[in-house]
Amino acid sequence: MSSVFDLAPIAAASNGGNNDPHLPQPRFVGMPQRPSKMPYEKYIAYDKQVPFSYPQRTWPDKKLQRAPRWCSVDLRDGNQSLVNPMDSARKLRFWNLLVSMGYKEIEVGFPSASETDYDFIRMLIERQLIPDDVTIAVLTQAREHLIRKTYEALRGCKRAIVHFYNSTSVLQREVVFRKDKDGIKQLATDAARLCKELETEAEGIDISYEYSPESFTGTEPEFALEVCDAVVDVIQPTAEHPMIINIPATVEMTTPNVFADQIEFLHKNLKNRDAIVLSLHPHNDEGMAIAATELALLAGADRVEGCLFGNGERTGNVDLCTLGLNLLVQGIDPQIDFSNLHEVRKIVEYCNQVVLSERHPYIGNFVFTAFSGSHQDAIKKGMEAREVAAGLQGADLDTFLWQVPYLPIDPKDVGGSYEAVIRVNSQSGKGGMAYLLKTNHNLDLPKRLQIEFDKIVQKYADETKREVKDEDIWRLFKDEYLPVEESGNHPALADSHDDSLNRWGRFRLLGANIMSGESSSDTVIKIKIEDNGFPHEDVEPHVQELSGIGNGPIAAFVNAISVLGVTVSVLDYAEHALSSGGDAVAASYVECQIGDDSNPQIIWGVGIDSSITTSSLKAILSAVNRTMR
Amino acid sequence: MSSVFDLAPIAAASNGGNNDPHLPQPRFVGMPQRPSKMPYEKYIAYDKQVPFSYPQRTWPDKKLQRAPRWCSVDLRDGNQSLVNPMDSARKLRFWNLLVSMGYKEIEVGFPSASETDYDFIRMLIERQLIPDDVTIAVLTQAREHLIRKTYEALRGCKRAIVHFYNSTSVLQREVVFRKDKDGIKQLATDAARLCKELETEAEGIDISYEYSPESFTGTEPEFALEVCDAVVDVIQPTAEHPMIINIPATVEMTTPNVFADQIEFLHKNLKNRDAIVLSLHPHNDEGMAIAATELALLAGADRVEGCLFGNGERTGNVDLCTLGLNLLVQGIDPQIDFSNLHEVRKIVEYCNQVVLSERHPYIGNFVFTAFSGSHQDAIKKGMEAREVAAGLQGADLDTFLWQVPYLPIDPKDVGGSYEAVIRVNSQSGKGGMAYLLKTNHNLDLPKRLQIEFDKIVQKYADETKREVKDEDIWRLFKDEYLPVEESGNHPALADSHDDSLNRWGRFRLLGANIMSGESSSDTVIKIKIEDNGFPHEDVEPHVQELSGIGNGPIAAFVNAISVLGVTVSVLDYAEHALSSGGDAVAASYVECQIGDDSNPQIIWGVGIDSSITTSSLKAILSAVNRTMR
Repeated sequence: MSSVFDLAPIAAASNGGNNDPHLPQPRFVGMPQRPSKMPYEKYIAYDKQVPFSYPQRTWPDKKLQRAPRWCSVDLRDGNQSLVNPMDSARKLRFWNLLVSMGYKEIEVGFPSASETDYDFIRMLIERQLIPDDVTIAVLTQAREHLIRKTYEALRGCKRAIVHFYNSTSVLQREVVFRKDKDGIKQLATDAARLCKELETEAEGIDISYEYSPESFTGTEPEFALEVCDAVVDVIQPTAEHPMIINIPATVEMTTPNVFADQIEFLHKNLKNRDAIVLSLHPHNDEGMAIAATELALLAGADRVEGCLFGNGERTGNVDLCTLGLNLLVQGIDPQIDFSNLHEVRKIVEYCNQVVLSERHPYIGNFVFTAFSGSHQDAIKKGMEAREVAAGLQGADLDTFLWQVPYLPIDPKDVGGSYEAVIRVNSQSGKGGMAYLLKTNHNLDLPKRLQIEFDKIVQKYADETKREVKDEDIWRLFKDEYLPVEESGNHPALADSHDDSLNRWGRFRLLGANIMSGESSSDTVIKIKIEDNGFPHEDVEPHVQELSGIGNGPIAAFVNAISVLGVTVSVLDYAEHALSSGGDAVAASYVECQIGDDSNPQIIWGVGIDSSITTSSLKAILSAVNRTMR
Repeated sequence: MSSVFDLAPIAAASNGGNNDPHLPQPRFVGMPQRPSKMPYEKYIAYDKQVPFSYPQRTWPDKKLQRAPRWCSVDLRDGNQSLVNPMDSARKLRFWNLLVSMGYKEIEVGFPSASETDYDFIRMLIERQLIPDDVTIAVLTQAREHLIRKTYEALRGCKRAIVHFYNSTSVLQREVVFRKDKDGIKQLATDAARLCKELETEAEGIDISYEYSPESFTGTEPEFALEVCDAVVDVIQPTAEHPMIINIPATVEMTTPNVFADQIEFLHKNLKNRDAIVLSLHPHNDEGMAIAATELALLAGADRVEGCLFGNGERTGNVDLCTLGLNLLVQGIDPQIDFSNLHEVRKIVEYCNQVVLSERHPYIGNFVFTAFSGSHQDAIKKGMEAREVAAGLQGADLDTFLWQVPYLPIDPKDVGGSYEAVIRVNSQSGKGGMAYLLKTNHNLDLPKRLQIEFDKIVQKYADETKREVKDEDIWRLFKDEYLPVEESGNHPALADSHDDSLNRWGRFRLLGANIMSGESSSDTVIKIKIEDNGFPHEDVEPHVQELSGIGNGPIAAFVNAISVLGVTVSVLDYAEHALSSGGDAVAASYVECQIGDDSNPQIIWGVGIDSSITTSSLKAILSAVNRTMR
């Protein structure tokens, strides 16, 4: 019997790659590229693994004209690829999201392989959570006991798709199933026959079938066709009650034009084509799943299985959101509601616990941002011209033709907005500022403090109209949050010759005694504090000794300083070591509400000290002093 | 003069989308999809914006055969898209990375627009940091003063590419430049003529030229050809000293087959083609940049500009790493070294301050992980079969043909490894465990503590052979880190009937007094501590009063307990509030080295208390007690 590994000598002999002296070199300027040490000889070109040629293709002359039939497999393929698969609550939240967006086919699980999936499907059915116009699909391998369990899961359901599959690839036939082509085909037809039998037990359920020749991209298209035809022969679908033939690019193995050729071949040659919904299930191993899907739709496919934002095994399933919005920008209704994509993103990130890239099409944090001045200028001019043109035509701007340089979609249409980031001031961006403080000063600012401090940096950037450098940020931070002994003189006072003003805030901590018992609920603090009066007040500094009680030093401290007329409640805090070692310095961040309830001020304070307690107390005083500046 | 906005009525009239009753509906099972409320009528199909047809295309029958000429634009296009553009140190680090990987053309900046870029280029030249076989490229708009400044930046350089561009799109001609076709063409040829003039001043520099009709995807291909030909006429390149014509998909606007058609049209029709390096510069707005590049290479392009991992404006430039590795898996030497891709990723993330997606092809954290049991099984069988086949052929496994289900590349070839995640135990994955503790218990574990605790969870999962649920994780965490009063009895002792063992660790903190002055360097602590002796020792609990001094309560505490024969040094700690409010409870995490230098143990401790001080001290005792269990 021949083996896929027989290709090894062919690969070794034929993969000259760039080293083949008979291949023309690409044109270039300068000096040539060099061979790398990458082991290209251990891989073999796709057309040598799966020889196929389809020169009669017509798809390259076609255009996309309508939305395909969408099927979300988030709750199955997406879910099975998560480090932490969804619990029922998350699954239900995702289900509701999909239904609200307009998906009418939703693969909800693999009930014979997972109890969680089984229970979830039972819940959907028993609690009647499936709207009348939504059809659920359930996946099963083409194995008898699994198929039986699948039908059990469906009891009482009104309408469902039973999706059975087996792997048909050359490689899996050899190394996993150890069966020849006929054996593999029989797996599929046996499963189909069993389904037909069980149908009688599933009375009252409007059942449709879906068959997938799994690992199709590693299968000879002619053999995949043969297996699919054989399954169709058993199921005997009709145009009125069709079945789905689903073609999985289980692993993406080459350029998408080849996949499109294969799909057109199936589209043109599948038996009983009118009774078949030709479906795609692409994965993104080579980063071309979107393209593979769109070209295969040109080639005749009817339906697409994928996941929101391209979640799924390894590199993911094809991204249903990008596909839908790619249609929208061609003037085609995707038949799915993406108008609140940012909310969709939040729910998906919550359910999947996977964070999207900053550059994810249509939704990444940076995709509606122009950093370069010339882009910003062109966008501004384009927006203005569009407004004028809409006015001239008496059209509503919200629906008027979108033609703006560098922005392929109106960010508003997906619930977002355009953002120009002034490059010369770019370091004033929150991310950049926070990153610099972390990298260069080991300060890991809590998110809300970043937002607060960002306003200070932005104001400075606006005033100075020049690039805000790392040292500026550090100076601004010290001036804003840290007392004079750590920050040097406050710049606002730098030009002042009045030495009495040469200090940072009203209060200064001189010492603290903290006494706590085992339970900490009766922590007592005694502090020495210097009160310099309000800035610009002509008050002699005087030292006060205060004491307070609370369930910890912070609470006790807040209690102690209340006699100074300062009402503080601590809303949040965080603390971390600035460096390694027992004598390390700590940074404390405290979010305080200062003042009474009628006029409260929410403000952050920062303290740095070798003592974790003192740094916290200093942070509170930093916040208090800031309200009095 | 006609306007792009004249298309508005056409869009409104022709975009029937799915609502057009004349369009056949896609085949489907179940109930139909519904129109969405997305405003598809404000967009217009690409072929109505840029009509073009090229049925004589030959690229769909071609195969990729060799690596193109690569040019990294990370230091220019990539850098300009960062919230926080690279400083010189980061740029130099990125430059060194690119050189070490084997890139021979590197666009280093836009020196006439950015002082940082200018200075960086001067540094490269003056410090002779450019290897003899590497050519730098510098970008400039086609404007006189910018071109002059660009040549200034190049003084003393041995070899360079001057890359000038202007936007040629229908939209930008109208709304940004307000020029007709001839005016736009003249911008380009004027720039070319100025370059030729300045060449005489740039004696000693081997200068090549690159011209880009920017926003090409919004330009009529025939007009782009006309402009490029006009530029070529001025520059007069030769086969021995060619120029680069670079085609930017500045905004990706439709399916990649259309871009390939356009490129084949240029490839076949450009004047003096032998003297031209036809180059691509794709962006990823519709998520198809990789495909657009590969199809355009089939169509005749010689060269690709992109960024590592697809950084760049908005959705990014095309990803050079995915392109290179897509060639590798076809048996083609990419001529770039990706063998340590994980190190490359670290440097790129450091320089760009942008984190890659978990599903990024070839490098994302999940792409070499199989979650599903059937995938894991097939991979295992595939690995075994490959080993056997290599043995039979007497081949070296490291270079033997790679044929493994679900893994298109040997993870080792990019410096990674295959990881099977057992799905039923999947919550024991670090990410999932940490997420659960954060979401359900507000505990935000430091990274190294996650790693430590993960081992405990994994061990439990291996022993119980069942899914580790949230409550299991919480119980394990309490049992491991928190003393008996917070965690209940230790499960190791649960079956014991000896009540004297019914406690968690040797030491328990009963109270603490902390006295600190202003500087904190003389913090004095007095503590009451209960010592129960080593577990299983028959010792009466006894209370000791100890005192210590240090530069903060932690240091003072460590000093105090040293008389108990416990040597602790604190390596790292972090602390945060568990919830909002002044009476909130704090969690402290302390990484300690315990024991003397000859036999130190690195271990974490956790303390939870309403007092931030007490929680830290408890955390230290937690670590100490753990070493004695």
